[in-house]
Amino acid sequence: MDNIAEKLGSELRSISIAEFFEKNRHLLGYDNPTKALLTVVKEAVDNSLDSCERGNILPNIDVKIMRKNENRFKISISDNGLGITKRHIPNAFGKLLYGSKFHKLQQSRGQQGMGISSAVLYSQLTTGRPAVIKSKVAGEDKVRVYHIKIDILKNEPEIISEFEEKNNEFKKSGIKIEVEVEGKYIQKEHSVDEYLKQTAIINPYAELTYVNPKGEKKKFKRTIDILPKRPKEIRPHPHGVELGILSRMLATTKYKSVVAFLRNEFSKVGATSGEEICRLAKIPLRERPWKLKHRDQERLLKAMQTVKLMRPSTDCLSPMGEEKLKSGLQKEVNPEFLISITRNPVVYRGNPFQIESAIAYGGELNEEKDKVVKLMRFANKVPLLYKKSDCAITKAVSGIKWRRYGLEQPGGNGIPRGPVVILVHMSSTWVPFTSESKEAIANYPQILKEIKLAVQDCARKVMLYRNRQLRAQREGRRKSVFENYIPLIAKSAKELAGVKKELDTTPIINKVINKELMKYEKKENN
Amino acid sequence: MDNIAEKLGSELRSISIAEFFEKNRHLLGYDNPTKALLTVVKEAVDNSLDSCERGNILPNIDVKIMRKNENRFKISISDNGLGITKRHIPNAFGKLLYGSKFHKLQQSRGQQGMGISSAVLYSQLTTGRPAVIKSKVAGEDKVRVYHIKIDILKNEPEIISEFEEKNNEFKKSGIKIEVEVEGKYIQKEHSVDEYLKQTAIINPYAELTYVNPKGEKKKFKRTIDILPKRPKEIRPHPHGVELGILSRMLATTKYKSVVAFLRNEFSKVGATSGEEICRLAKIPLRERPWKLKHRDQERLLKAMQTVKLMRPSTDCLSPMGEEKLKSGLQKEVNPEFLISITRNPVVYRGNPFQIESAIAYGGELNEEKDKVVKLMRFANKVPLLYKKSDCAITKAVSGIKWRRYGLEQPGGNGIPRGPVVILVHMSSTWVPFTSESKEAIANYPQILKEIKLAVQDCARKVMLYRNRQLRAQREGRRKSVFENYIPLIAKSAKELAGVKKELDTTPIINKVINKELMKYEKKENN
Repeated sequence: MDNIAEKLGSELRSISIAEFFEKNRHLLGYDNPTKALLTVVKEAVDNSLDSCERGNILPNIDVKIMRKNENRFKISISDNGLGITKRHIPNAFGKLLYGSKFHKLQQSRGQQGMGISSAVLYSQLTTGRPAVIKSKVAGEDKVRVYHIKIDILKNEPEIISEFEEKNNEFKKSGIKIEVEVEGKYIQKEHSVDEYLKQTAIINPYAELTYVNPKGEKKKFKRTIDILPKRPKEIRPHPHGVELGILSRMLATTKYKSVVAFLRNEFSKVGATSGEEICRLAKIPLRERPWKLKHRDQERLLKAMQTVKLMRPSTDCLSPMGEEKLKSGLQKEVNPEFLISITRNPVVYRGNPFQIESAIAYGGELNEEKDKVVKLMRFANKVPLLYKKSDCAITKAVSGIKWRRYGLEQPGGNGIPRGPVVILVHMSSTWVPFTSESKEAIANYPQILKEIKLAVQDCARKVMLYRNRQLRAQREGRRKSVFENYIPLIAKSAKELAGVKKELDTTPIINKVINKELMKYEKKENN
Repeated sequence: MDNIAEKLGSELRSISIAEFFEKNRHLLGYDNPTKALLTVVKEAVDNSLDSCERGNILPNIDVKIMRKNENRFKISISDNGLGITKRHIPNAFGKLLYGSKFHKLQQSRGQQGMGISSAVLYSQLTTGRPAVIKSKVAGEDKVRVYHIKIDILKNEPEIISEFEEKNNEFKKSGIKIEVEVEGKYIQKEHSVDEYLKQTAIINPYAELTYVNPKGEKKKFKRTIDILPKRPKEIRPHPHGVELGILSRMLATTKYKSVVAFLRNEFSKVGATSGEEICRLAKIPLRERPWKLKHRDQERLLKAMQTVKLMRPSTDCLSPMGEEKLKSGLQKEVNPEFLISITRNPVVYRGNPFQIESAIAYGGELNEEKDKVVKLMRFANKVPLLYKKSDCAITKAVSGIKWRRYGLEQPGGNGIPRGPVVILVHMSSTWVPFTSESKEAIANYPQILKEIKLAVQDCARKVMLYRNRQLRAQREGRRKSVFENYIPLIAKSAKELAGVKKELDTTPIINKVINKELMKYEKKENN
């Protein structure tokens, strides 16, 4: 028996995170060849947009997919972002869980430090080819080139070659990545084409060019020349912290008293509230943070969570804004009526977030008026194409009673039908995705509620518009009745009265109609 | 501009896997307090069952949940498994991605080396408490006790204390783990209670005792005294390997020729097929594996995938078997009719898998006959309670046209209604879960197909049973008609014929009925 336990022990060993995701690549968005193509493009474009915004640069991004053979593609994405200084390139592309965004409370597309290296991983797994990275930072005149693979067992970059070349690719700065992967190209719902189209809608200040595997070139033009306000980085809010994290912060802080720790490591804690927390927790103000025992820490946390504080700052968020949301959608779907709303920021588990929604109605959409409404989901300005049924956005929209807003909804539940596009965008310092592939938002109650309120608000305005429109139609019909009959009545009246000269009936018509309309409007408003 | 790129670079850093999952704990099954309680129990019980089976021990597992205060619970799980030798305890419980099952092609409940350490992580995050681990291996007379936390930034165990104590807990060997967590206790659909009930159904050779937070004790008794056949470990099959993995295997193999590499590192490759692969790939048999260039590797892979080979061995799988499946379900739901089927093993992406299904009909289930059918999902003998709508099992069952099998199915799609329980079990060396929390099976087409065939087969047999039953009812009615009227006819006939003695009409009745029945059966069978 012993030796079984001993043998079992000897079989235990570490698994590198790269190995784990190599075996579980569906968790990173590489479930199948179609999705793999999209995921590679998405990870690279998301990084490009983040880098441009970080450098205050209007993004120009080129995406090119070339077919090598039936199920093998070469994908290249290049941008005019900040570039990466050479010594950081290998880790940024060749190591999973390495990045600058994970530890920050600030809205960005990437948040895990896993995206682009997952593309490198998938490429080497399916075609054995290294990724080619070119980077130029402003001020340098050469381009740095790396051929990189991942040492899977160590989760470390493996540099196949590195050299410099003359710059004939970048104006000032930028990155180009090229990978060769197994994939499958489609042009439908879950395609790269659809992803880029929606990316253009939600990032109207970006210019995207795209060459698909058929060699067709598409350009998504910039419609706004102003970058969104850059979101600020914030410190954690006392109401959102958990014991394990507080404990770690206490152990590693550079501040030498608990009250200084509270004031400097958290947002919205001032002199008064810091002292109040200490008093509530029965901890001396000047106590060394790292000396607190478990019980002290528990009391401290409780005090932090009970004391009244201002809500977290929301300048860490960068929503689209109602106008930009409209302009993006207008360009792509050309509806008859368009409404958008940006709600005020709120908080879940200490994380600020903000919901925006837009609804487009009619116009070109009338061609598809009996179909299920198109739902566009976005998180931190990234389109979400897969895992629709998992997503808080879908759940919130499905739960609305759409018949009240004049849309068909078979069974009184689910996505409604009609000539409508519904767009929902969540901005947050931490979007709770349901998987590492970041395709759906987890169903937190506060998030569901905010989405519902935003969409209902838009829906109400669409309904008002449609009512006005229907009323105008009815008035039009009524008016044409008067216009047809009043001249006849006038003619008869003229004959009866023995009047000879021609009568102008227009004033009469208008008077009668206006009177009718006033009656009608009064009725409508009651 | 430079210094932004430089600053950006300096912000880049590694994220430990523990940190990643601390922030993304919903990915490990700790989305909310209710689920957290279940996940802790599940991870521990899964390990206990694996350990017992590994040691060929009939499992006795005790689960106890004690309420500490409104939202804090102490959970303890102990087993009579093999135990763990002391020097391996810290890593096994205090380090994510550490285990013995990840690198094996062999069916087991755990597969990632993440489960139990995730419980330790969640415990320290929410209550700051270390986990208490007690272990005894056979042959030693003392119990080894560890108080363990995880050093989150390093993903390494942090030993708070370790000592030995006299054994008064274990008979021969075993493990006990105790953690204190934030949680919420419910008794409904997604509860610990339901998880243990379903665990008992799918592991009828295990004995489980459970004390819930109310202090109520429940015992799930062992119904079978024989352990299932232990699944064997197999080598990868050439048809399921990918280029990146082949490349790594070639670089690290101990075999000195390509042909020996093929024969020894893969299953189902013999002398002939090994040589054929080399010939097809145009690679000399005696070539050193680690000397193959990228192009050679590509040709080798292609040859491996084209050559005809036997399918992977399936003794790496341990399905329940039709009888055990029935006995488990019989005990828990007590139906009128019960059918089960174990399909032959098949393969997806090189991984052998096997689907089993059972359907229980009527009996005690008639009390809920208008409700939606209860669907029990299992993977490698573990009940899946959450993420029902994501799961391949749900998708396959929803896609069956249930009206054909006599069950109501509003809209002709979705889970049907009726007095029925449907059970589906997938056994595999690698179950493709949709997340690290292992709650739903990914929608691979081959898996969907096998599930559908298994369930349809059971459904067909249920329908035959119901038809026979309906027929018997009709026959019963017909027979009673004859039984009532034939004596009257006989009486009249007797009077008419002037016969005096009593006639026995039974033979006449039977003759007529049998004739009628034969006609009827003929009609039914055409």
